[in-house]
Amino acid sequence: MNEKDSVKKDKSGSVGRSETRVDAVDKVTGKAVYADDFEPQGLLYASVVRSSISSGKILNLDTSKAEEMEGVEAVVTAENVPGSNVVPVIEEDQPALAEDRVRYVGEPIVLVAAGERKIADRAAQAVEIEYEETEAVTDPLEAMEEGSPQVAREEVNEEGNVFDTLVLEKGNIESAVEKAPVVVENEYRTGHQEHGYIEPQGMTAIPKPRDKMELHGTMQCPFYVQNAVSKVLGYRINKVRVVQLETGGAFGGKEDVPSQVGALAGLLAHEAGKPVKLTYDRREDIKSTSKRHPSVVRYKTAADEEGKVKGVKAEVFIDCGAYQTLSPAVLFRSLVHTAGPYSIPNVKIVARSIATNKVPNGAFRGFGTPQVIFSHESQMDLIAEEVGKSPDAVRELNVLRSGDRTSTNQKVGKSVGLKKTLHRAKELSDWAKTRHKYESWNESHEKIKKGIGLSTVLYGVGMSASAPFLEKAGAYVKLEVDGSLTVSVGNTEMGQGAETVLAQIAAEAMGLDIEDISLTEVDTSRVPDSGPTVASRTTTMAGNAIIDGVGELKERISSVGREMLECTDVRLEDGYLVDTQDSSHKCKLEEVAQKMWAENVELGVEGWAEKGMKNWQPDKNQGDAYFVYSYATHVSEVEVDSITGQARVTRHVAVHDSGKIINPTTAAGQVEGGVAQGIGYALTEDLEEKEGKFPDPDLTNYLMPTSQDVPDDLVVDFVEADYPEGPYGAKGLGEVPLMASHVAVINAVSHAIGNRVVEYPAIPERILEAYSENN
Amino acid sequence: MNEKDSVKKDKSGSVGRSETRVDAVDKVTGKAVYADDFEPQGLLYASVVRSSISSGKILNLDTSKAEEMEGVEAVVTAENVPGSNVVPVIEEDQPALAEDRVRYVGEPIVLVAAGERKIADRAAQAVEIEYEETEAVTDPLEAMEEGSPQVAREEVNEEGNVFDTLVLEKGNIESAVEKAPVVVENEYRTGHQEHGYIEPQGMTAIPKPRDKMELHGTMQCPFYVQNAVSKVLGYRINKVRVVQLETGGAFGGKEDVPSQVGALAGLLAHEAGKPVKLTYDRREDIKSTSKRHPSVVRYKTAADEEGKVKGVKAEVFIDCGAYQTLSPAVLFRSLVHTAGPYSIPNVKIVARSIATNKVPNGAFRGFGTPQVIFSHESQMDLIAEEVGKSPDAVRELNVLRSGDRTSTNQKVGKSVGLKKTLHRAKELSDWAKTRHKYESWNESHEKIKKGIGLSTVLYGVGMSASAPFLEKAGAYVKLEVDGSLTVSVGNTEMGQGAETVLAQIAAEAMGLDIEDISLTEVDTSRVPDSGPTVASRTTTMAGNAIIDGVGELKERISSVGREMLECTDVRLEDGYLVDTQDSSHKCKLEEVAQKMWAENVELGVEGWAEKGMKNWQPDKNQGDAYFVYSYATHVSEVEVDSITGQARVTRHVAVHDSGKIINPTTAAGQVEGGVAQGIGYALTEDLEEKEGKFPDPDLTNYLMPTSQDVPDDLVVDFVEADYPEGPYGAKGLGEVPLMASHVAVINAVSHAIGNRVVEYPAIPERILEAYSENN
Repeated sequence: MNEKDSVKKDKSGSVGRSETRVDAVDKVTGKAVYADDFEPQGLLYASVVRSSISSGKILNLDTSKAEEMEGVEAVVTAENVPGSNVVPVIEEDQPALAEDRVRYVGEPIVLVAAGERKIADRAAQAVEIEYEETEAVTDPLEAMEEGSPQVAREEVNEEGNVFDTLVLEKGNIESAVEKAPVVVENEYRTGHQEHGYIEPQGMTAIPKPRDKMELHGTMQCPFYVQNAVSKVLGYRINKVRVVQLETGGAFGGKEDVPSQVGALAGLLAHEAGKPVKLTYDRREDIKSTSKRHPSVVRYKTAADEEGKVKGVKAEVFIDCGAYQTLSPAVLFRSLVHTAGPYSIPNVKIVARSIATNKVPNGAFRGFGTPQVIFSHESQMDLIAEEVGKSPDAVRELNVLRSGDRTSTNQKVGKSVGLKKTLHRAKELSDWAKTRHKYESWNESHEKIKKGIGLSTVLYGVGMSASAPFLEKAGAYVKLEVDGSLTVSVGNTEMGQGAETVLAQIAAEAMGLDIEDISLTEVDTSRVPDSGPTVASRTTTMAGNAIIDGVGELKERISSVGREMLECTDVRLEDGYLVDTQDSSHKCKLEEVAQKMWAENVELGVEGWAEKGMKNWQPDKNQGDAYFVYSYATHVSEVEVDSITGQARVTRHVAVHDSGKIINPTTAAGQVEGGVAQGIGYALTEDLEEKEGKFPDPDLTNYLMPTSQDVPDDLVVDFVEADYPEGPYGAKGLGEVPLMASHVAVINAVSHAIGNRVVEYPAIPERILEAYSENN
Repeated sequence: MNEKDSVKKDKSGSVGRSETRVDAVDKVTGKAVYADDFEPQGLLYASVVRSSISSGKILNLDTSKAEEMEGVEAVVTAENVPGSNVVPVIEEDQPALAEDRVRYVGEPIVLVAAGERKIADRAAQAVEIEYEETEAVTDPLEAMEEGSPQVAREEVNEEGNVFDTLVLEKGNIESAVEKAPVVVENEYRTGHQEHGYIEPQGMTAIPKPRDKMELHGTMQCPFYVQNAVSKVLGYRINKVRVVQLETGGAFGGKEDVPSQVGALAGLLAHEAGKPVKLTYDRREDIKSTSKRHPSVVRYKTAADEEGKVKGVKAEVFIDCGAYQTLSPAVLFRSLVHTAGPYSIPNVKIVARSIATNKVPNGAFRGFGTPQVIFSHESQMDLIAEEVGKSPDAVRELNVLRSGDRTSTNQKVGKSVGLKKTLHRAKELSDWAKTRHKYESWNESHEKIKKGIGLSTVLYGVGMSASAPFLEKAGAYVKLEVDGSLTVSVGNTEMGQGAETVLAQIAAEAMGLDIEDISLTEVDTSRVPDSGPTVASRTTTMAGNAIIDGVGELKERISSVGREMLECTDVRLEDGYLVDTQDSSHKCKLEEVAQKMWAENVELGVEGWAEKGMKNWQPDKNQGDAYFVYSYATHVSEVEVDSITGQARVTRHVAVHDSGKIINPTTAAGQVEGGVAQGIGYALTEDLEEKEGKFPDPDLTNYLMPTSQDVPDDLVVDFVEADYPEGPYGAKGLGEVPLMASHVAVINAVSHAIGNRVVEYPAIPERILEAYSENN
């Protein structure tokens, strides 16, 4: 891979350097402790009895055989829940354990714990459940029809299966469409996407002295788990402590689900009075945990003859499964991103979340936006065709520039690097020449068709105007007497590199090396609720919290240090406190720390960061939706075998504006991973579902890209549109690479075969169908 | 026991209430996790090879048989120490593992770890050590003589065995003695005292990801252990985390020793790359860990004919054993307390710490003061005899009152309740009448002699002017969204009740119930170095830190709460935020917490407390020695069998001024324990030592008091001289009960037998000797 470190190193310090990941050695040598490695003394193992049907009543539940089995230490049903029988996420509609009804295949009903996992599994199998099956609905559009069986509890949805309807309205879309010379309309569909993290779900609950419960496991959002366990056990929040273990990938799949896994483990640990570990194997994980929402998007774009878009009208339907979990937030992000990174005067989006009798869908990198980006970037290519321009030219005409307004009428002022990413991506891909070359090739070749595709995206960083109360982060920083720094944050490393990047930010702020920084485990008892580790917000928010804490610490250091150096102004640099008037006049930070310690100066500080989103109007969903946006342009090149329908990505260029890049190598890693994930989403990741069941819940049948499927020629670059309110100018990156990648691939496929594929994934059958339509 | 709750409950709130200990249920039900209960996965067990001789050279060290033994996973000698081979306490004179010399029986030389403890022990026995014995010295006065073999390293003591000599000088002692009509002079001796904590030493070291080392164990001072492990392993401080487990008693014995135990466990864990637990059984604990310094005190008191003391001249010798550990600080406290709680114009004290070839002595409740209190309270009784007054009358004449100056010339201003304790103790013991009754009894009875004795003491709270840099404490307080409070401190619960008392202070400050407060484990990574948990400082210092943190939190609460209640001033009370103008106008703290959470108000605060001691003059040891003093008067009644020499305490009255009593029941518990410990120190606790060895290191031969030895009639009371700079007026209590108890007992024995016992413990042989001198 052609990783290009585009960041200038214009000074000493850690930010902007490709520091080695602080977790690298532990992960490579096997020292890292993942959920299933964690074995506290006296541990029991859990097994979950799940619903085998999509919809029905539980007529009888007999756990007696399980209870009598030797080695079984606890059996829990809905009747034994000491607190509220809910898994709280946004709503509280999902029971921890099914009571009288089941709503999806895989819904937890009974929990068993035993000294050995195989005994727990055997006991789980011995639980007898008598159901009365009722009619299920698994297609979201059918679920909206009148007379369709109601999925959700009456308390949640009084009638029907639409959980929420959101409307975004700007300008006058009807008039815009009416007047427009060019109107393009299409329907796009996407299926489930499975997260496919390396490490499946796992959580251990440990009853502790002073009536506390500790949870240790793989997760993104410890404070969510804390809240869920507190609710289901009826414990005060200060009696529930959640500590993150090494986390082997997440992609959103460990945002909501660990609340459920933690609640179930907690219930058993409370019942047994002993530690209980609940881990899922791959099949249980795929069968029972959330995925990306399948979607249907009906999209109409109105443009003038130049290709300038005048209006977008769309209907978005997302398939939630049986409970809401994060669907309200996913729906909001879909809504706001539907119109894409373009300056469009008239927009109307109606977005609906729909209940079906399937496993609840939840968070997944992008959070409802890949579905709508598939639509808007397909549409943009179609507009280009209609007006006889190339895809890049139409985007050039429409992309947001500083001062423009998004579909929510938010003015994007600072840090709008979209156009630069477009130019740089074109340059790196030799766009025009390559496009021309492939068109010539296709004219003269029958079997292998070649194409190049482009995508431009924006991505809102952070929790959005729909959840401003989560836009916060704490950091505890403590100077040690030897000049090293201890840092605690409430946001997690899950493979994305946050621990390294946050250590770099702390090092930079303190004028230290990254080796001088040590982050503690993430632990809910160390810092206040710091919001979730999602929405590409961690570098910005936790980074700002660290800088805030270090800022106060530096004031104390300076105050003592000025006395020591007998000077008026000092700075921290390379482990020294330096007289700003005379850089040869300095002393080691360690010496200052010792003096501060001896003088009883407080060496610990809590830092805090928050971003309020103030002017949101929820009726038409207008106002400032996100505190900042990141941008990207991807260009993908494919070869399609027109006989087999197989598509293969041959080259991919990814150019991102995420503001300042703290660590070019980890950033490039994020981008490469996002490209791989996008290739899978666009082309191969097809999760078969039959009447609410997944018949083949494994990675043999669900085809995630391997190194064979990712092009060797993967070019990553950054244009850094400085974001002054982020740490050293950084804004979010994490999710964005996936956003831009899949549809660049699909646009390349469309270019190759001369027709659009309108349903993800573009498996050979669908490619062949589209190709045959055109030939 | 006649526990009297003298504290008025004049309001709601937690302070002043006898709340149930927060650790009670866990300790009674066995849920509490002590050092030996702690079994992390993959644990190895350690065994220590110790010196069998008092003084000598190590000629050869052969560990090959141990290394070859099956199951042995690590063998460590001084050669494998990766950092500095020291156990840092005050000085760094003690090696973690002996190099070429040994200086006491029990000194660690080799460490072994194996998967089973018995294998480790067998391997330890297989280590072969060839010594060249050299002449040892075990008597401190002999050790001071010229030509005595030198114990300490030349780097530490250039020549001779006196580690330190401190001189306290106030006024003109020579002239005072010359002019005084009454001069009393005596020599007092005390032996070793063993701490006898319920739980012996124990520490587990766990190598952790990111090259960290975690220590979990029984301890008083986590930051000392952190420093020691960091030094011996050569790790940065932010890579060493120390977490206290439930601690089963300490009494100072877990102040310095856990640094050694932790260093040894850390060395093995580093070498093995696996968790290693090192626990001592009772015999290893008694043989190898620090005790109270044996002492010799030569004391001259000069008084006028009324018994008003005009001068004190004393020489104090404390026997340190082979290394210094905390001896410099013990010596300082001895020095400052030698003249007692009296206003004396002329004082000269010379105090010396002396090296001998014995196990190093260290911290023990009172820290060098019981030895000198034995002297000054014996002397005060002798003065009374000389001037023909009763012991109480002489004390009445001399005790410090507000405005008086101590022997360091410190003016005691606020919170001087000594005289009140004297009056109250006389009242509760019916002093004069009882004394007269016993004197009559003794005239007519030969076998059983009865006596009543009195003691008045002062006790400096906190780290003193000799270590002002340790006089600090941090506290992290975090309001949870359900209105509960999480609190972290750096000071430890070791059985004394600190966790309960600090929870009460937090509850009081927040207007909450104690049930709403939860303290986290004490963990060095959570708060800055908070000094040690010693010197009766924890309630005051950690309490003040909590109040500081809560103060800031309350400002934030008030700011949001005033808006919610639409009023100008609010207070927290009984879980509510109340309009101060209208107490019916209120809302739940939980609601305010939710609003604060939703508005992204920072809910965590670090509190801090520090006390600087500024005006100390070390040449003559004059100035403010402690930030405040606590006071007590005890009255003890005994029966002595003049045939067997056995003494038995029949009644004991203990009245304390420790300022505000936060929890009367836990405070009474401290007093009762201190009385029992004092009875043992005065009468029975006799640790036989032969040429530096303890032949019977067990609790069968070392006689600690049982419930049979503590009088049923034990009266505890408090006079609360408010200390405005302490939390709710509290100052220190922990050590003081021991200070006052032992010598009240010994004064009662002297009263019974008509002659003084001048050596502790007053075992039957010594009592009979003193009795026979007089008869």
